[in-house]
Amino acid sequence: MNREAIYHCSSFSYAYPVEKDVLCVRLMAQQDDIKEVKVHFRNLYEHERPMETVPMERILNDGLHDIYEARIQVKEKRFKYMFEIHSDEHIFYTSDGFLQEWTENNCFFYPYINPDEILEMPDWAEGKLIYQILVDRFWNGDPGNNPKGCRAWEELPDGETYYGGDFEGVIQKLPYLEKLGVDILYINPVFSSPTYHKYDIRDYYRIEDIFGGKEVLKKLVDCVHARGMRLVLDGVFNHCSVHHPFFQDVLKNGPKSEYREWFCLYSYPVEEVKANYDSFGGLVPSMPRWNTANYQVIEYLTESAAYWTEYLNVDGWRLDVADEVAHIFWKEFRRRLKGIRPDILLLGEIWNHASQWMCGDEMHTVTNYKFRNAILEYAQGYLSEKKFWQKIDNVRMLYKTPMHTYLVNLAGSHDVARLGTVLKDSESVKLVLLTLLTFQGMPLLYYGDEIGMEGGEDPDNRRAMQWSHADECLLAAVAKTGRFRKEHEILQKGNLSPIETEEHLLAFSRSYKGEKLNVYLNFHEEQALLPKKKEAILFWEGEVDIEEDYLRIKKGGMIITSGE
Amino acid sequence: MNREAIYHCSSFSYAYPVEKDVLCVRLMAQQDDIKEVKVHFRNLYEHERPMETVPMERILNDGLHDIYEARIQVKEKRFKYMFEIHSDEHIFYTSDGFLQEWTENNCFFYPYINPDEILEMPDWAEGKLIYQILVDRFWNGDPGNNPKGCRAWEELPDGETYYGGDFEGVIQKLPYLEKLGVDILYINPVFSSPTYHKYDIRDYYRIEDIFGGKEVLKKLVDCVHARGMRLVLDGVFNHCSVHHPFFQDVLKNGPKSEYREWFCLYSYPVEEVKANYDSFGGLVPSMPRWNTANYQVIEYLTESAAYWTEYLNVDGWRLDVADEVAHIFWKEFRRRLKGIRPDILLLGEIWNHASQWMCGDEMHTVTNYKFRNAILEYAQGYLSEKKFWQKIDNVRMLYKTPMHTYLVNLAGSHDVARLGTVLKDSESVKLVLLTLLTFQGMPLLYYGDEIGMEGGEDPDNRRAMQWSHADECLLAAVAKTGRFRKEHEILQKGNLSPIETEEHLLAFSRSYKGEKLNVYLNFHEEQALLPKKKEAILFWEGEVDIEEDYLRIKKGGMIITSGE
Repeated sequence: MNREAIYHCSSFSYAYPVEKDVLCVRLMAQQDDIKEVKVHFRNLYEHERPMETVPMERILNDGLHDIYEARIQVKEKRFKYMFEIHSDEHIFYTSDGFLQEWTENNCFFYPYINPDEILEMPDWAEGKLIYQILVDRFWNGDPGNNPKGCRAWEELPDGETYYGGDFEGVIQKLPYLEKLGVDILYINPVFSSPTYHKYDIRDYYRIEDIFGGKEVLKKLVDCVHARGMRLVLDGVFNHCSVHHPFFQDVLKNGPKSEYREWFCLYSYPVEEVKANYDSFGGLVPSMPRWNTANYQVIEYLTESAAYWTEYLNVDGWRLDVADEVAHIFWKEFRRRLKGIRPDILLLGEIWNHASQWMCGDEMHTVTNYKFRNAILEYAQGYLSEKKFWQKIDNVRMLYKTPMHTYLVNLAGSHDVARLGTVLKDSESVKLVLLTLLTFQGMPLLYYGDEIGMEGGEDPDNRRAMQWSHADECLLAAVAKTGRFRKEHEILQKGNLSPIETEEHLLAFSRSYKGEKLNVYLNFHEEQALLPKKKEAILFWEGEVDIEEDYLRIKKGGMIITSGE
Repeated sequence: MNREAIYHCSSFSYAYPVEKDVLCVRLMAQQDDIKEVKVHFRNLYEHERPMETVPMERILNDGLHDIYEARIQVKEKRFKYMFEIHSDEHIFYTSDGFLQEWTENNCFFYPYINPDEILEMPDWAEGKLIYQILVDRFWNGDPGNNPKGCRAWEELPDGETYYGGDFEGVIQKLPYLEKLGVDILYINPVFSSPTYHKYDIRDYYRIEDIFGGKEVLKKLVDCVHARGMRLVLDGVFNHCSVHHPFFQDVLKNGPKSEYREWFCLYSYPVEEVKANYDSFGGLVPSMPRWNTANYQVIEYLTESAAYWTEYLNVDGWRLDVADEVAHIFWKEFRRRLKGIRPDILLLGEIWNHASQWMCGDEMHTVTNYKFRNAILEYAQGYLSEKKFWQKIDNVRMLYKTPMHTYLVNLAGSHDVARLGTVLKDSESVKLVLLTLLTFQGMPLLYYGDEIGMEGGEDPDNRRAMQWSHADECLLAAVAKTGRFRKEHEILQKGNLSPIETEEHLLAFSRSYKGEKLNVYLNFHEEQALLPKKKEAILFWEGEVDIEEDYLRIKKGGMIITSGE
């Protein structure tokens, strides 16, 4: 056995409470190195009765390691445990390393599950479909609130001009979203800001009039709720606009400003041209960074979020540049907002490994851009099926298992080139979206991707929604799959396991409460043949033949069967 | 190379800020598998200028793994980095695994160092010598405050009886502690309680009169400070006495009690005989557990700690059963006490792996009972030198490197059998204490161990201090070594590295600011010979001969030399 590849620690994603008396424990090992592993456990203060034992299940593989997991229950909430491993040797793995014989002093300990440690997730959001909208670019429902100098809807965007989209436009298009099977609407920032993208806020207590102001936003939220959908706002708490009055005060009064500790200043006088202060990414002087480790700043900004959460009755926040903001900020933010709305969804914009923010007291979930990397590389033929799955599991290994059905998988966003431009052919675009919509996690659909819109990097990826140039075939396939997902809880909440086939198929099963679905997608030119057993065909899309002994899937085809 | 043994994650003890723009990164590898490893890094938003590179240093080994570490500095506080490894292969280790070629998208990211993340330690405590006292058992300075029915000083203890020791007695013995080189006095609980040990508090706002009350305790703190020493109180916030008025209210009023959510109740009526509530360890109905995840409880208890910190001017708290208390309790406790006293020391009683409490926002340090296990096993001949060091490093791997000089190493406490009883001979007792006093960490000396007191498990390990039966040789050796430690900053703050010798010696170097000391201890019957070079002999104890070419160390001997 490769002993050096075995890893466990009694904290973080390797030992985490999931119920008041249930601990989830993980063990990492070299892939395919272990025949069987069990965990032995009992109450930490029990010295007489024998230990209980549960087998561990192999749940993840990243090409180097397997992750095994088990849930152990001790009604006293106090745990000691150790692992028994059968490999080419039979050995116990303990907090004192590998032992042939052990005493209870060698155990790992999880001393107590306090209620604050139990992983709490907003159940309503599990596996739900998110649709992202730039309000200015979606639909102009009320020309009366257009800002001056709007660009024509069909023209390509620059980094400055408005198009006239507004909340009323979104309201008018809600039936469209419903048809897609959308559960959650996520709208980009709507607070008063000097720019069209509004990621630099001037007034945290004012909703943009050009979008319709706070009354129409409230109406939008109510309309969304009336259709059984939810709405998530975009919260920008890392930085503000250089025009924010507190920063203006710093520019004017320098070291005498009462807000001098609210920002990260390098020297006085503070000047935008000198950029002698920290800003978004350290790069954008028009967006000075808040000092989010300052309790006054925490109070001011969380208060604004609390105000809007309550006033608008929104269901969650997507949190911009969440990984530049102080951890103490997010802990207080979560505590405050959960006080108002216990099931609030907090979704962090974090592009890379986000363990630090996913400990259970900051973000519920994060933007899984690694999914985009993997599926686009696979769709372009740069990855084998096996490598694709290794990349997926490499991400899932970072997070506690109950978080997997919440990971926000995306194929597009306002920060990356559009699918329709990255990929050469429309069949691949479709299959990427169908993968997204049948995958584990919360799929995020970027407005327009479902109609095949093109667009390179920012600002080209933010074109106005081309309602009259939709790829109707693509749209129909997306809508049909989106609704299928909505009707099947298993696609929202089920486990995910790769299926190995003899063909070049992206294939995986979803399983939930004893049921199973199998999803097969063909991204390749060659048709794929799957031996047919007794499984029922639940769903298909594209060029697919169902024969007596075979399922034939041509390029662009997807089949979903009921699992054995 | 054993690729499966390589581990890094961009958080916890593998990537942690130590200064405003300095990140400490670690990499784990199979022991002796890597020839060289470097870390390449730059500002996360820098895409043009080449990466900077620093070599990583091997700092720890637990018999399976080596830990490598390096500090990387990026003045923008935003990091991307990856590792270049030379082994039997030459490969890059990235967030996407092992790559022959990499782009910056494959990097690990540490997005920003906010000030709340920078590891803050109370500098005054680094490596300082702690002396632990049970006030009732140390010295009776004022017979006037004796409780009724005190036991004679020489008699063996039961689990109930008082001896009459008090704060005045401790004050009278401060010159003795000074002679030992003690820096920090830690006294067991002193708050109003129905038991002699006082781990079940009845009134958090009352100091025991039988010890002299709050005025004499304040006098003790002042006297301690006047001698340049510090004082640490024992805080018991996990549970209280069944006689605490709030719990009495629950017993009386059941579900109508305003304190029903302050405890962990299972059913009504609440009764001590039925023990239908959670208690210390789930075992001791006379000690009901507070619901430390309840914000009212957090407020009530941290307020009492804040009150005494301010009133008495104490320097820190040893926190009882810290690992049963909710994390949100400790985070608030730390924040509150740091507001009063920014350099407060928080020392958690945690016997096992304590990573969860050592993230930088709860405990500064914990009781390192694993040191006791290792040194006692070594002293009894159950461990080789090599295995001893592996056990030491197995603990150090859990914690960030700047915490190593704060780990509270102990050989005795009120919860374990005394050294003088566990070990057969006084030479071994002496060497264990000399090891403790020259080791990295904060050595904790349990009252009486330095005079060779005996005592089995609780309550026998809590005998009254046998001033008139001291082992004077042992005491002299301990005092001499304690003072030597106090005079040598390197013994308090230096790095620790094992030294391999040809002999059965426990040997290690301490290094600090370019200086080095070497410590050699002989626990074995056979004498040990060390080739002598030009090193200066700084200190010796026991049977030691300094010859022209050799240093001869007989059993019980210790030599400290200046390093090469």
